[in-house]
Amino acid sequence: MKRRVLLVIVLLTAVALTGVAAQEIEEVLALYSRAFDMIWLTLAGALVFFMQAGFAMVETGLTRAKNAGNIIMKNLMDFSVGALAFFAVGWALMYGSGFAGIIGTDQFFLVGAGSEEFRDWFFQVVFAATAATIVSGAMAERTRYSGYLIYSAIVSGLIYPISGHWIWSDTGWLAAMGFHDFAGSTVVHSVGAWAALAGAIVIGARRGKYVRVGNTVTVRAIQGHSMPLAALGVFILWFGWYGFNAGSTLSGTDLDIAYVAATTTLAASAGAIAAMATSWTWFGKPDPSMSMNGALAGLVAITAGTWVISPGMAVFTGAVGGVLVVVSVEVIDKIFHVDDPVGAISVHGVVGAWGTLAVGLFGNLELIDSGLSRGAQIGVQLLGIGSVLLWVLVTAFVLFTVLKATGLLRVSEEEELLGLDISEHGAESYAGFQIFSNM
Amino acid sequence: MKRRVLLVIVLLTAVALTGVAAQEIEEVLALYSRAFDMIWLTLAGALVFFMQAGFAMVETGLTRAKNAGNIIMKNLMDFSVGALAFFAVGWALMYGSGFAGIIGTDQFFLVGAGSEEFRDWFFQVVFAATAATIVSGAMAERTRYSGYLIYSAIVSGLIYPISGHWIWSDTGWLAAMGFHDFAGSTVVHSVGAWAALAGAIVIGARRGKYVRVGNTVTVRAIQGHSMPLAALGVFILWFGWYGFNAGSTLSGTDLDIAYVAATTTLAASAGAIAAMATSWTWFGKPDPSMSMNGALAGLVAITAGTWVISPGMAVFTGAVGGVLVVVSVEVIDKIFHVDDPVGAISVHGVVGAWGTLAVGLFGNLELIDSGLSRGAQIGVQLLGIGSVLLWVLVTAFVLFTVLKATGLLRVSEEEELLGLDISEHGAESYAGFQIFSNM
Amino acid sequence: MKRRVLLVIVLLTAVALTGVAAQEIEEVLALYSRAFDMIWLTLAGALVFFMQAGFAMVETGLTRAKNAGNIIMKNLMDFSVGALAFFAVGWALMYGSGFAGIIGTDQFFLVGAGSEEFRDWFFQVVFAATAATIVSGAMAERTRYSGYLIYSAIVSGLIYPISGHWIWSDTGWLAAMGFHDFAGSTVVHSVGAWAALAGAIVIGARRGKYVRVGNTVTVRAIQGHSMPLAALGVFILWFGWYGFNAGSTLSGTDLDIAYVAATTTLAASAGAIAAMATSWTWFGKPDPSMSMNGALAGLVAITAGTWVISPGMAVFTGAVGGVLVVVSVEVIDKIFHVDDPVGAISVHGVVGAWGTLAVGLFGNLELIDSGLSRGAQIGVQLLGIGSVLLWVLVTAFVLFTVLKATGLLRVSEEEELLGLDISEHGAESYAGFQIFSNM
Repeated sequence: MKRRVLLVIVLLTAVALTGVAAQEIEEVLALYSRAFDMIWLTLAGALVFFMQAGFAMVETGLTRAKNAGNIIMKNLMDFSVGALAFFAVGWALMYGSGFAGIIGTDQFFLVGAGSEEFRDWFFQVVFAATAATIVSGAMAERTRYSGYLIYSAIVSGLIYPISGHWIWSDTGWLAAMGFHDFAGSTVVHSVGAWAALAGAIVIGARRGKYVRVGNTVTVRAIQGHSMPLAALGVFILWFGWYGFNAGSTLSGTDLDIAYVAATTTLAASAGAIAAMATSWTWFGKPDPSMSMNGALAGLVAITAGTWVISPGMAVFTGAVGGVLVVVSVEVIDKIFHVDDPVGAISVHGVVGAWGTLAVGLFGNLELIDSGLSRGAQIGVQLLGIGSVLLWVLVTAFVLFTVLKATGLLRVSEEEELLGLDISEHGAESYAGFQIFSNM
Repeated sequence: MKRRVLLVIVLLTAVALTGVAAQEIEEVLALYSRAFDMIWLTLAGALVFFMQAGFAMVETGLTRAKNAGNIIMKNLMDFSVGALAFFAVGWALMYGSGFAGIIGTDQFFLVGAGSEEFRDWFFQVVFAATAATIVSGAMAERTRYSGYLIYSAIVSGLIYPISGHWIWSDTGWLAAMGFHDFAGSTVVHSVGAWAALAGAIVIGARRGKYVRVGNTVTVRAIQGHSMPLAALGVFILWFGWYGFNAGSTLSGTDLDIAYVAATTTLAASAGAIAAMATSWTWFGKPDPSMSMNGALAGLVAITAGTWVISPGMAVFTGAVGGVLVVVSVEVIDKIFHVDDPVGAISVHGVVGAWGTLAVGLFGNLELIDSGLSRGAQIGVQLLGIGSVLLWVLVTAFVLFTVLKATGLLRVSEEEELLGLDISEHGAESYAGFQIFSNM
Repeated sequence: MKRRVLLVIVLLTAVALTGVAAQEIEEVLALYSRAFDMIWLTLAGALVFFMQAGFAMVETGLTRAKNAGNIIMKNLMDFSVGALAFFAVGWALMYGSGFAGIIGTDQFFLVGAGSEEFRDWFFQVVFAATAATIVSGAMAERTRYSGYLIYSAIVSGLIYPISGHWIWSDTGWLAAMGFHDFAGSTVVHSVGAWAALAGAIVIGARRGKYVRVGNTVTVRAIQGHSMPLAALGVFILWFGWYGFNAGSTLSGTDLDIAYVAATTTLAASAGAIAAMATSWTWFGKPDPSMSMNGALAGLVAITAGTWVISPGMAVFTGAVGGVLVVVSVEVIDKIFHVDDPVGAISVHGVVGAWGTLAVGLFGNLELIDSGLSRGAQIGVQLLGIGSVLLWVLVTAFVLFTVLKATGLLRVSEEEELLGLDISEHGAESYAGFQIFSNM
């Protein structure tokens, strides 16, 4: 009898101890799960931040030397202004508790945020800045600096977060319908591009770009001043895109992280090759800036479906993006006479829409997991593309029209001729070099 | 009876097995904990290494084309020489077993190091190199290359590690007093800047920079030759700073990693905007190089307190850094006539001191966990700032004076006029370009 | 009796529960193990991808302005074409089920791949592209663009994967013999360099490089057009190399990750210093491009042995690499009159062979774990170096000879004089700048 009691006590103690151990272990496991997400999203966010350098170099390289410092200031400031705007307002509108699936309503200034919210804010702010910076390229070489600061704040703080809420907030109305945009072909790239389209239309073309004589419009090419810097920018963007797309798994224990990196790689490669081949066939020579834009187009195209599109179809999606970007750049320039110095509207808007549609066309419906049929998924993707297009075009058009009316949108003819580096900043960018400024 | 014995055996076996499993699990958990730290610090260290490219581009872009190859050689070599010096001596002085809280005394050449020490050495060597490289900017365009190599080795191998020991070694005397410098506003940035200050004073200004006629000194601006490269450098530095600050958690399972990234982002953005606004108000136009230095100032300012300062105060700390850097650059140049071509003394020294003080002013005392009152914390921060200032100024002053006396410090007038690329390296940096070298 | 039964039931339940918990915990631990590898290899792979930007900048900076856009297109396209070739064919030949240790035979187009295979493909494709891109530098400024595309696909899709299979596939014949090449001094760098050597011989020197008058050959130096871009490229390569070498642990829970980063840092630093010192002694001045190539030589030299060579010997291995690269560049240019504009054959080939041999000479035999004696290990390393040299030289020689015979290898004299930017792409790279094109 005594031995039996002793035995029972020993056994119960042992069981209790292993129970305690199990509980402690589970706490450690929960910590590690959070640690995976923390380091993964912080590193991926840093990579996305670095894309700002990529945009700055692409836009600088593809425009003229006399405006280099200005475009760089715009790139530096759209991030800086955008980050503060997204801290104060943007995050709240995008990820705050939703009102009717349309807009977030709390967490302004990140009030009450814990370590997870700071993590998510950091990963999201770099996306918001990406949308804003796209605009600077399309409106380069003629936009007044002060007006630029104002619309940067509004794009990052208001326009981008609201449509973002529809799609990436749990309670957004497009999310609820099953719209799928994994890393932001529409949420980020198209938003930037449609704002750029509105801006490029309202501000008008650069001086000397389209010369009308009678009924004939002569379209003049204005060459960028540094292909090496533009190419460096493309490589930086591609590098950062691994954070952009693979980071959008939002989890450091997701086993599809490398799958996303693989489809991203394939689409970018196919886009570069397809754009090169298109320009070669069309213009007789493989064009460097078209090929670079082709790589970016491949990246934009796969961004929405990078997690749900097969490797083979990633190649196809990217290749179509590469063809589209060349056609679109030519059509927008030669037919519509909208002056987009770096091709941003084509790369991020037209191809962003294509990538979003490609999810519906080729995406694995089981992975998308919306419960929709193929046809319904295509329909919802088109609805999302159209809704965001409408939202951004209208609000950006109003914004730029107001800026134009108040004289904040465009520099004077003399300033444009002189170059924005001198006129807006009083500092040349290439002191000591002999530069011939054209037009 | 037999059945009972059997039962007991079964139960004991089961308990023993789960006990064994628990022990094995705990070993795996311990391995994972080390793995988190390993990949986090290696990746963060790689990011900090990349800041070398940022410094190289900033310094190259903000100086003249005729000295571009020279400044690049200095940046390449301060890391290379510094890394070997920090391997041989620096690590030991900084993190070896301490003597009286003043200096480390063992682990020269990393003797006896295991995987954790190699990890920590790698993360620390890139910080040591950061301190050294700051000097090259302030002394650019006139420092003899051979002298540069010597002082690089001494800064990375002796000056930096000793004051570093006071603060970052567990047994350092400033650490013991409760001095808090999370990622090195003082430990790294101020050390580099105070050495730069001593150097800039001892070596004197560039030829033609300050022209004295009677009692009047005319201050001439010497423009840098590439704003795009300087801007690229700023973006690279900002990118690398996520490794610098967030990596300084020193743990891959720290849940404040993204919090640090967030305050870093906010301070940098605020610094850029504040410096831009200051230059705009003061000079009439938003100045590109001041704005870029403003972003860097925001980063330096938040480096000490990134983990203990609230997001709102991070904005404020960065903004003050941005204002300070413009004022400091002007005062050092126009009033003290100390020639610092890139503004390094202001960015890293003046603002580094501000950031270190900000910890005392706004830092969360519970997190700082020094047990000090607000006032005492402020006092200790000031003591740390002052002690490091004194240590570095004195040793660097002696060092540069010796170099000057031995003719190793400065190139001749003719060499300076010709440019250091040709005179020191026999190779121009922009072959094929028409360049007008001024002064 | 009833109480005893109750007790037994309670105990058994408790034990069963902890057993279940242990099983669940083990599943989570297995997931985490995969997550470590996933994020580590994806991030390391992204870093290696970024090396493409480094190669592009180094090659652009060290060649003339009139060919800048062309060399950039080649760098963009060797990755793009190479990635698709490695997706379709290369991966299968390298890592498919082996035939006699010589060649892989399945997994074309990654058929049947799961998340681990996509991870490994992503990490490997960036290595394949590295091998291909090395060739572009050595054959710069005269290679026809269309021919370049063809040989890029063949190098990435056929030549590189087959010798890669011998060494890095589990069933490769050199692997079976105990050949050790941790991160690819031979597998990657030498393969690229020997292909470059064959190419440089077959295509011949640039116009005006070697001028024969009677029996005397005058060797003319053709300077690169941008030291800052070249230096930026070197820093980017060094940064990416942390992914290249440390990522080659192939495991996110390997505790030697930082050890690898440390030996990589030491060897690169020593290589830069040694090459600088060699050029200083030999030519009278510390040469920038030699010093940069010295850093790269240090990196190539340690790549094979980074995991098995001690820190002290890493310094030595890198330093020898730095001396070797200067001697080799001079010998190949001045004695053999093989025109390698960027020194790629010396950096990646000669020094790659040295690094592979160094494993045999200084590598820790216990870590290498081949069971071979020191002498036998040296023999196997030499056998591997020789086999790969033979394989690549022969196949690349055939390839380039066929391209030459079909007129796809070299541009015309007029095109070369005009510059490949205009002749091959119809677009200048530095619009607005005054450029003097030499020779």
